[in-house]
Amino acid sequence: MKIHIVGAGLVGTSIGMVMGARGAEIIFSDSSERSARLAQDLVGAGNVLTNDPADLLIAAVPTDQSAAVIIEAFKSNLAHNFMDVASVKTKCVAEIEAFDPNLAAKYCGTHPMAGREVSGPESAQAELFQGRPWILTPGPQTSSQTLALISQIIQAANAIEIHMTPQEHDEAMALVSHSPQVLASLMAGELTSHSPNSAQLAGQGIRDVTRIAASESNLWVGILKANAQALKPVLTSLHTRLGSVIAALEPEVDQVSISKFLETGRLGQALIPGKHGGKRKYVVLPVLIEDAPGQLKRLFIDAGDADVNIEDVSMEHSPGQPTGVVQLSVAPESAEHLLNYLSERGWRIYPPRNPANLA
Amino acid sequence: MKIHIVGAGLVGTSIGMVMGARGAEIIFSDSSERSARLAQDLVGAGNVLTNDPADLLIAAVPTDQSAAVIIEAFKSNLAHNFMDVASVKTKCVAEIEAFDPNLAAKYCGTHPMAGREVSGPESAQAELFQGRPWILTPGPQTSSQTLALISQIIQAANAIEIHMTPQEHDEAMALVSHSPQVLASLMAGELTSHSPNSAQLAGQGIRDVTRIAASESNLWVGILKANAQALKPVLTSLHTRLGSVIAALEPEVDQVSISKFLETGRLGQALIPGKHGGKRKYVVLPVLIEDAPGQLKRLFIDAGDADVNIEDVSMEHSPGQPTGVVQLSVAPESAEHLLNYLSERGWRIYPPRNPANLA
Repeated sequence: MKIHIVGAGLVGTSIGMVMGARGAEIIFSDSSERSARLAQDLVGAGNVLTNDPADLLIAAVPTDQSAAVIIEAFKSNLAHNFMDVASVKTKCVAEIEAFDPNLAAKYCGTHPMAGREVSGPESAQAELFQGRPWILTPGPQTSSQTLALISQIIQAANAIEIHMTPQEHDEAMALVSHSPQVLASLMAGELTSHSPNSAQLAGQGIRDVTRIAASESNLWVGILKANAQALKPVLTSLHTRLGSVIAALEPEVDQVSISKFLETGRLGQALIPGKHGGKRKYVVLPVLIEDAPGQLKRLFIDAGDADVNIEDVSMEHSPGQPTGVVQLSVAPESAEHLLNYLSERGWRIYPPRNPANLA
Repeated sequence: MKIHIVGAGLVGTSIGMVMGARGAEIIFSDSSERSARLAQDLVGAGNVLTNDPADLLIAAVPTDQSAAVIIEAFKSNLAHNFMDVASVKTKCVAEIEAFDPNLAAKYCGTHPMAGREVSGPESAQAELFQGRPWILTPGPQTSSQTLALISQIIQAANAIEIHMTPQEHDEAMALVSHSPQVLASLMAGELTSHSPNSAQLAGQGIRDVTRIAASESNLWVGILKANAQALKPVLTSLHTRLGSVIAALEPEVDQVSISKFLETGRLGQALIPGKHGGKRKYVVLPVLIEDAPGQLKRLFIDAGDADVNIEDVSMEHSPGQPTGVVQLSVAPESAEHLLNYLSERGWRIYPPRNPANLA
């Protein structure tokens, strides 16, 4: 298979790595000569490049350039099939489908939901897509041959193929990706208009809520603008509901509406899948550790000896304190065994509690 | 020292444990006979209880009961000094100060910012307050003797003593604790009015933003209502700014305002201290692991052998996938050594990237 990748960034180069390792012939082009060469080097030399059209051309460029790149490549007869990887789909897909039915038959929009921290081929890795959803938005004219080619890539990348319409995709992203980004930036930005002493009191709650506010602004401006159509109804709903919360705080309003608001949040939170895409709840066991080299090692040696699979691990930060808490998540049936096992070995481990909540 | 703790819940019992271990005489009272007895047993038997007033009475009851408990105890001459631990301060402190200047001199409001996941003396632990801020809101009449007594407890608990006015406290909590809770519940609740298929596409971003939405609703209704005065201006500012974001998504508006909004979020996020209360940034190294027992153990053995202190650890979930990514945070000067060391031992570890951001 011969694949032409336009855009030697993180995603494009990572796809090249996946398929290069499978023996595909990979050609990169990029407005940056350095990026294209670096990507080509990373994927591996020794490929014999021919002048025939590629089997598949992948536009791995910013959202607002995807359609133009695909259409130009089609006009220049660069490939037999076409796909893009932009994280907003409706507009791009519509433009391509409207251009020429012959192109529409050979094209499918896609979105690999992989790390987006950016920056160039040097950050690429074949494992980028492992276990992540890779959404396809085929049109009514998309041929089964084009789909089969793309499926090969998704399988090689160990990603999970999911089919949606472009609108479904954009609405889902507005909800689970773009709106959380807006709320995280909203909350974090609020800190800049208050005394910095307040931020010093931040606990794990606000830390988690605002983590993604550290994201690249440039990348996100493009995404939010491109998906404005699907994003506005979600943000408007959030805006209206936030207004209701403010109204419900008035002293003359009883506690029922705030209580309902919080309960709805609990229900929604429970809809988010945990590890393995399941909704299984793990038991969380806190272990106190000294902040010294070797402590985590000792802990995981002992936990490993207990023959219990640790499903998740996180650490709680204690400002200005040499002690930390490691949270071990395990299957409910393993919890008691691990608790006893580690206690016997002198670890300060505590029985599980209700879902974490730092006041 | 003789301490009378009213409210044998998580916080009250944990304080009892801290001071009981230091030889203080601890008396619990609670509307639940079982809780009081359990707390007393946990703190340790053998204390000789006298009928003299206690040196210090601690009201460790829900926010809206704190003032009444303190005033009743004062009227009954139960103690020489008084404190409470409620997470909202202005109203409670004002009521107590207004009741009697003699009480005001012997009282100080406090708020230990420790885990709040619930419920009863059985969850108590002397380590609960380790390294966490413990805020004091002394009034103009609070005596130095009362403050000295309370400082003893905070020192024994290894907490960090911080002085603020009740208003400063409530405003800071509205910002760094209560508003993030509202936004997390707001975002999570939004999932309930969309197709559950969307939630299946959730990545680490929305997972972090909504984590605390799983918190106890009852506890939070009380906190939000009690702090309505300080919370409303913050929520109103968030509401207004969210409205501006929605307006800025209109096609005729240029990208500058969205870009500024996101940049302000980045600045605010950087104000939140990391571990040890500092603002130091760690380097994050992703390591790919198989989801099999013993993998984490092997990883931490090797990382420990590298003699590098792991500052933070987290795991990324891959829906439906047997592979996970462990993120190791280390000091910048240790990163390259750990990277090479683990690579040589066959780990699939990758160089650092920009701050995490999953699209």
